[in-house]
Amino acid sequence: MGEVDRAISLFEGGVTSPLGFLAGAARAAIRESPPDKLDLGLLYSLEPCAAAALFTVNRVRAAPILISERHLADGRARAVIVNSGCANASTGERGLGDAEEMARLAAEKLSLAPQEVVVSSTGVIGWFLPMDRIRSALAGLRPSREGGLDFARAIMTTDTVLKSIAASLSYENRRYLVGGCAKGSGMIHPQMATMLAFLTTDAPVQPDFLCESLRRAADASFNMMTIDGDTSPNDMVLALANGAASGPGEEPIGPGHRAAPLFQAALTRVCTHLARELARDGEGASKLIEVRVEGAADEADARRTARAVAGSLLVKAAIYGCDPNWGRILTAAGYSGAQVREEACQLYVQGVRVFAKGLPEPFDEATLREALANREVNIRLDLGLGPGAATAWGCDLTEDYVRINASYTT
Amino acid sequence: MGEVDRAISLFEGGVTSPLGFLAGAARAAIRESPPDKLDLGLLYSLEPCAAAALFTVNRVRAAPILISERHLADGRARAVIVNSGCANASTGERGLGDAEEMARLAAEKLSLAPQEVVVSSTGVIGWFLPMDRIRSALAGLRPSREGGLDFARAIMTTDTVLKSIAASLSYENRRYLVGGCAKGSGMIHPQMATMLAFLTTDAPVQPDFLCESLRRAADASFNMMTIDGDTSPNDMVLALANGAASGPGEEPIGPGHRAAPLFQAALTRVCTHLARELARDGEGASKLIEVRVEGAADEADARRTARAVAGSLLVKAAIYGCDPNWGRILTAAGYSGAQVREEACQLYVQGVRVFAKGLPEPFDEATLREALANREVNIRLDLGLGPGAATAWGCDLTEDYVRINASYTT
Repeated sequence: MGEVDRAISLFEGGVTSPLGFLAGAARAAIRESPPDKLDLGLLYSLEPCAAAALFTVNRVRAAPILISERHLADGRARAVIVNSGCANASTGERGLGDAEEMARLAAEKLSLAPQEVVVSSTGVIGWFLPMDRIRSALAGLRPSREGGLDFARAIMTTDTVLKSIAASLSYENRRYLVGGCAKGSGMIHPQMATMLAFLTTDAPVQPDFLCESLRRAADASFNMMTIDGDTSPNDMVLALANGAASGPGEEPIGPGHRAAPLFQAALTRVCTHLARELARDGEGASKLIEVRVEGAADEADARRTARAVAGSLLVKAAIYGCDPNWGRILTAAGYSGAQVREEACQLYVQGVRVFAKGLPEPFDEATLREALANREVNIRLDLGLGPGAATAWGCDLTEDYVRINASYTT
Repeated sequence: MGEVDRAISLFEGGVTSPLGFLAGAARAAIRESPPDKLDLGLLYSLEPCAAAALFTVNRVRAAPILISERHLADGRARAVIVNSGCANASTGERGLGDAEEMARLAAEKLSLAPQEVVVSSTGVIGWFLPMDRIRSALAGLRPSREGGLDFARAIMTTDTVLKSIAASLSYENRRYLVGGCAKGSGMIHPQMATMLAFLTTDAPVQPDFLCESLRRAADASFNMMTIDGDTSPNDMVLALANGAASGPGEEPIGPGHRAAPLFQAALTRVCTHLARELARDGEGASKLIEVRVEGAADEADARRTARAVAGSLLVKAAIYGCDPNWGRILTAAGYSGAQVREEACQLYVQGVRVFAKGLPEPFDEATLREALANREVNIRLDLGLGPGAATAWGCDLTEDYVRINASYTT
């Protein structure tokens, strides 16, 4: 992995960093406030793309998910139209018609077939889209090479920080870029629900391999992140690969291709960066919590344990309060469903060992409290049973989470 | 059920309402504050009892759970010693020794064998019990027929309200009583973790049937209640039946006994009352939420759905804020794992239909907001698929929940 890591570097950028992608945003005033909020985004590739997506696992699925799944069935797409403010979920036939019309409007504007357009929405459930306002906002929208950050802004809802990043990977004499943006920030939970993320690359990638790579990257990143345990009907991670940076006659990246591990690593790095930023910006959050589990019986157990700890309200509230109440961490491991034997466990909070081999370890409480005041809190739990390891991300639980979610529709 | 219901009535009472039970409490000062908090309780039956218990499903199990499980293996017990303030969990061999000593001390005081004593603890994990203070507090404790409420007080931690109740059941010319008390109020979640409940009855009951009845009663009550999704290493529901109200030569209640449905109904009524009170007094809660699911494909799906809705942080926060954001209810149903088809669903909030057959229903928002300001909020979701029905209880999520849990050990 050392060599792979050296060949990849993250840099400030986004979905239009890779060659051949244009994006832009406009205001359709889907919600009244804030009055200058961008809420309609358009992403476009100058060339046809291999496309792969992961959709929400919620049984209630919003109209844009149903339409996009259909449009992506052939593994190809060239554009994304997305709005925030209204989820177009639980809206029946009319909602399906509205999602189809969004695809048709974007296709007309870009001279594509509607099937080449992915549709995405996020916001309040049960509202209908104001199609007139979307139509006129779209008419004024001009995608450009510089529009990646505006696109990222347009998908934000309760996010307080824009999440956008890019990575370059050097492979022989080539340089490919991967760009991405994402939005949270409530309704976020493992298993790929509850968020939007859009990823682009100018590497040439086989559609099936793109799909497989995206699944692996999401498993290590978005699926290891939890804000509140809720999953939404709308969520989607989409990857588009247009091959714009490939040389003539170049073999697309697929299984066994020499660049495959590099591409996978770059995609995973971008997704992990976005997942951490999503967790850090969880609704009302004041701290990022990283939970590393080692020594689990297997990887599935490690993932289960890490997510249970990162998702425990009692752990989250304790960390908010800088309270070294480590019993709650063990408790969460205990109910995770993973194999846990207390006498084999070692637990570290901010690097301080607080529990080992079935017994509390003495520690200086004042020092640990101070360490817990950091904006990043690290929990490491060694289950002492096997080779399984995994990392999960979450955030603390604050009064602000409650305030934000007590009045979301107002 | 009408006849059964008429034969049962709830009344103010507790674990010493049934004949032959004594209880009491004392202060061992396990935690410093509040300075007058009772924290050691003793419950005792003048006659041998059939005993049944349900224990936490957490893989991390506190010392008193391990000891009590062993003592209850023969289906008999006569006393319970319980403390609050310290969970005696994650305390290794020393913790096991302390739990055993608690049983021994109670046994000596009551002239029983230690195996006849059930031990229970609740409070902070990872602390050792102050055995000296427990010993001297126990020496001064005097169980009596009037001590049921003090016993209920001694088990409280962050509970703000004492939870105690009794029921009488009339059967032919007999009257049997069932009494119970419980404590919450964080770390409460389905599957019998995260709480203590003690139930007594003077009916004569076969040990196996008591066990089966307790399981059924808990499935309809404690296992359908959720506060925060966490489960604790300590939790226990215990039932003791001493037969003190039975006449000479009376057949103990067992399968096929004519009083069996009555006894089951009375036990379930007591447990349901306590479960609702636990949910209502969830940490920081301002409202009780009752979620009724009907029309599920089967009962398991109904239970899953009701618990997911009652447990959704976004639903809980919206209800706190009187926000009629019903999309979150459908969303929770969608991720519950149950079979859900939007176009078959009907959703009612405080009796107002907000969604039907795949579409939002118009409703008067101001009126519904006002209705949501009630201390009890009723959600009814008809999935329109089959005969499954279930009810779950939860509470709203408030800033106070966060405050309480951010500084529990301090």
